[in-house]
Amino acid sequence: MAVKEFALSCPVPISDYPTVTLAHGGGGKLMHDLIQRMMLPAFRNDALDAQHDGAVFSVGSARLAFTTDSYVVRPLFFPGGDIGSMAVNGTVNDLSMCGARPLYLSCGMILEEGLPMETLWRVVESMRIAAAAAGVSLVTGDTKVVDKGKGDGIFINTAGVGAIEHGLTIAPQSVRVGDAVILSGDVGRHGVAIMAVREGLEFETVIESDCAPLNGPVQKLIASGVEVHCLRDLTRGGLATTLIEIAESSKLQIQIEERAVPVREDVTGACEMLGFDPLYLANEGRFIAFVPVNEADRALEILRGEELEAVRIGEVSAGLPGMVTMKSRIGTTRILDMLSGEQLPRIC
Amino acid sequence: MAVKEFALSCPVPISDYPTVTLAHGGGGKLMHDLIQRMMLPAFRNDALDAQHDGAVFSVGSARLAFTTDSYVVRPLFFPGGDIGSMAVNGTVNDLSMCGARPLYLSCGMILEEGLPMETLWRVVESMRIAAAAAGVSLVTGDTKVVDKGKGDGIFINTAGVGAIEHGLTIAPQSVRVGDAVILSGDVGRHGVAIMAVREGLEFETVIESDCAPLNGPVQKLIASGVEVHCLRDLTRGGLATTLIEIAESSKLQIQIEERAVPVREDVTGACEMLGFDPLYLANEGRFIAFVPVNEADRALEILRGEELEAVRIGEVSAGLPGMVTMKSRIGTTRILDMLSGEQLPRIC
Repeated sequence: MAVKEFALSCPVPISDYPTVTLAHGGGGKLMHDLIQRMMLPAFRNDALDAQHDGAVFSVGSARLAFTTDSYVVRPLFFPGGDIGSMAVNGTVNDLSMCGARPLYLSCGMILEEGLPMETLWRVVESMRIAAAAAGVSLVTGDTKVVDKGKGDGIFINTAGVGAIEHGLTIAPQSVRVGDAVILSGDVGRHGVAIMAVREGLEFETVIESDCAPLNGPVQKLIASGVEVHCLRDLTRGGLATTLIEIAESSKLQIQIEERAVPVREDVTGACEMLGFDPLYLANEGRFIAFVPVNEADRALEILRGEELEAVRIGEVSAGLPGMVTMKSRIGTTRILDMLSGEQLPRIC
Repeated sequence: MAVKEFALSCPVPISDYPTVTLAHGGGGKLMHDLIQRMMLPAFRNDALDAQHDGAVFSVGSARLAFTTDSYVVRPLFFPGGDIGSMAVNGTVNDLSMCGARPLYLSCGMILEEGLPMETLWRVVESMRIAAAAAGVSLVTGDTKVVDKGKGDGIFINTAGVGAIEHGLTIAPQSVRVGDAVILSGDVGRHGVAIMAVREGLEFETVIESDCAPLNGPVQKLIASGVEVHCLRDLTRGGLATTLIEIAESSKLQIQIEERAVPVREDVTGACEMLGFDPLYLANEGRFIAFVPVNEADRALEILRGEELEAVRIGEVSAGLPGMVTMKSRIGTTRILDMLSGEQLPRIC
């Protein structure tokens, strides 16, 4: 087979990483390395090179967004959500971040032999409810079953198609010096909610995942005429990694204020106990928006009208291209770095 | 969570199947049961109810097809293909069966911790080569890693978007009494190729999978003006199951001649040895076309011009709605039934 000819030139040095590690799927440095060195060069095309949450292209007169994500979260059910609601909301949100109105979803399930039928049913019901809430239709699907011990209950892939019905180019490349950085709510809850279930931790109040569809607020923001430059949801790698990705893609500096980033007290407490940094924890219902500074107040007002506790956390400058700097509560400034390892495997 | 309320009414009777079995993913009766009872009612919509290889819908003036499949084949590499080429060709073919020109693919990979990096690279290269051969772009992707022992090397999901650029409604519902049934080539090779590797069987010649993209021949057929009524590729469940699905959806009878169905001699031999029926074995590069009988010869000519050994294997009648009948080599006629169990798990 022709394929064999290429095996010798594997672009991820075998000496460094002879095998795939959990961190290669963790959203940090290793995952970015794998994507940059192996995936992007192999499949090179404009849509992929944009490194957005989805691909944007035109078919006839329609401008479309197209995205995919697989979900391998464990446990399958957790406070505030489950793998089914995540699989719907995650793809709805990725389409939303492209500025698209989510329309249609596909669903590919990989089930492990021995999965209780009732568990499958609960997940399917959760997907149905989440799809109805987000106003999308699940129009095509596939079910595979793997031998016991070769899977882990349920893995779900969803892909989605959405329509872009405005003239904006919402992408990291559209970020400009002077843009305000808006965050749609508090961070870190999804990560802590998952971890608490896994470790059997109990807090005074149950910390629920922020898992939610974001298409409603995003569509309102766009319809208002605010000149949205870039949107990105804060999943694997959290707020810090997302900001770094956008700083790198836009070749600009992003400065944020630690004090401005909302983290609930119980989440802060849990993070201190578990040794996590909430800035790097995955969220499933939070996003950042880059808008011209003179439109920031209006954007905040619109998002708050959608029951989001949106705040302005920073701004874009030209000083240190590709860098994210954070002014701490005590006034010092440091450069945020991507995680090199894996904080929480299988968070989504 | 609201989801719990629904758990009691799981539509697949728990007493019959308390857990998911391999056969629920095998393409036979149990899989159809699961889809009919659980998936279709949960996600009810026109596109899904059509039960085609993909969904067909319009966005603006564009008529689109959208489809997904997950690939869990083992072994990952086999004569004539590998999980990467299958993942590309399978989705290209599902779009083709909707009468669409395949344009864009997504790729979601679920990797098992410990997978050799070189294996991943070989699969990525194979996908790159297959995408280039089929003329599609892989525009968006996702990579997840699961713990060692919770996956099986690589699982791949691809979804695809294609454009429908003609006025035909290519679907089971368009099949008419008197239609000719055309088969694009010999059947059973993919199943035997996989089984031979798994069981370490050696034949005089290596039996290679028929894994191939079908968009070229299908586009030629449609462009020729032949009034194509329905197309379907012969994957899980093989020719027999595919015919039964279409007979059921169209509420018509399909009659085929066993003698007209090409099966290579080495495939027949292997099937006799292994106890398989080639009519039920999965193929990855074969399809059937339903066309008006007076256009059958032209359709055959066009497909043969594309280097397919296409043959006419039967016709559609109204006698026994939902049934597939086969006239055997010795002249008797029998009704073909869906497999109730699982002939070959994880074939695709």
